[in-house]
This record gives sequence, structure tokens and C-alpha cells, in this order.
Amino acid sequence: MTAPPRRSRSTEAVAFYQATFGAIVLHRVGEGEDIVAQLAIGNAAFWVARAGSAGQRVHPKAVGGATGRTLLVVDDPDAVFGQAVTAGATPTAQPANEHGWRLARITDPSGHHWEIGRPLGAWPPP
Amino acid sequence: MTAPPRRSRSTEAVAFYQATFGAIVLHRVGEGEDIVAQLAIGNAAFWVARAGSAGQRVHPKAVGGATGRTLLVVDDPDAVFGQAVTAGATPTAQPANEHGWRLARITDPSGHHWEIGRPLGAWPPP
Repeated sequence: MTAPPRRSRSTEAVAFYQATFGAIVLHRVGEGEDIVAQLAIGNAAFWVARAGSAGQRVHPKAVGGATGRTLLVVDDPDAVFGQAVTAGATPTAQPANEHGWRLARITDPSGHHWEIGRPLGAWPPP
Repeated sequence: MTAPPRRSRSTEAVAFYQATFGAIVLHRVGEGEDIVAQLAIGNAAFWVARAGSAGQRVHPKAVGGATGRTLLVVDDPDAVFGQAVTAGATPTAQPANEHGWRLARITDPSGHHWEIGRPLGAWPPP
């Protein structure tokens, strides 16, 4: 038996966002753990990169939390929440109606925090 | 002489985003440090809230960095970068042309990381 190839944390993160959120990879530069990848979920672009002390970019798992979280607006928050948990995310709030939203929260396998929601009224607000 | 009223970190953060990025406050609930505020810069909505151990929401200044950074797309990155530094942000990258963008980076007074940029070509990419 051969061991499976070691995958970097950044590469795993990209795979999670592709499989769970339907992200597409717009650009990817570098190799192994040193990739910088630009992804998009619909029109929302974001980047995945390695933590590094030079830029004070800290890894959520190294500091026991996140300094921000991202709201992902989707048609079916319950379904996306379920996909995320199946793919290894930690549920932090089950889907519920809250402040005019259908809203759930997860911590993804990299330790980043996401809200997954759908406004129950018009969005953006008029 | 009376001491100036003590302002919470969250309240200071909201004031910085209003003054520097032209953010408007859509909603604000709570008092003092325990506010949760929803702001918008153009069509981009975001929230300011206090760090808290319950939600693993860590303060950037407590962990010496940030677990993510936000890209703010503006017409004149050099001007907004200058405003931010004048208002107390720490410059981490002077405005420069990079990867097809005019791009600068700051750490805001709360410790959050921002890229301030303008695409030199079409955005979003075709």
C-alpha cells in the first residue's frame, strides 16, 4: 500500500470550498502548502493563503477562534449547512429563523467561521 | 476638567469605518461595548461586534494578527489609504500596482486587515 499523497491545509481548504459551497477556482499560484488560490462563490471572490507571521496572518486553529466571519447568502441554507457538516465542518448554530433571516453557522475544517443564510425579506434592504 | 467619555472598542471601530470608508450604519443594537452594528460601504454590508469566547470570536489585538482580511474596492485606493492612515490605521503595504490591481494594505485601529484596491482592468473578470 502506498500512503495517500499529503495534502496541504490550503489545498484541503480549497477542496472543501469547492465541494461544499460550489466554489470555482479562478486562479491558483504556487505549490503544496504555499499556494495562493482565488476562488469565487457566485459573484463573491475570495482568496485562500497560508498563515504567515510576516503579514500577521494567523491560523484560526492556532489562536482558538477567528477574528471575523463571512456571511454566505444562499437559496437553501439548511441544505448547504448539511453539506458543510457532512464534509467535516463543525456546526455552531443549527438553521433557525433569526432577525429576519434563515441562518445557520459553522466552523469549517480550517477553523474559519461562516454564517450560511437567506434573507426572509428583500435583500439588500431597500 | 472632566475626562472624555470612555468609548468602547466597538464604538471606536464603527466611528473609524464611518469616517474613513464612508460606511453608513444600517442598524445598531445594544449599549456601550456590547453593541452589534450593521454597516454598509456601498452595497457591501458587514457587522461589528465584540469579541467573545463563547463564539470563539477572538480580537485581533489579543492574538497578534487576523485570520482573514477584507478587500475593499474603491475608485481611488491611494486617497482611501491616506485617509485610513490619517485616522490611525497602520500602513502595511504602500499603494502599488500589483497583479493587475492598484493595491494598498492597512491594519485598522481594531487590528483588522484590509486591502484597499482598484482593478486596473475589468472587474469582476469576464
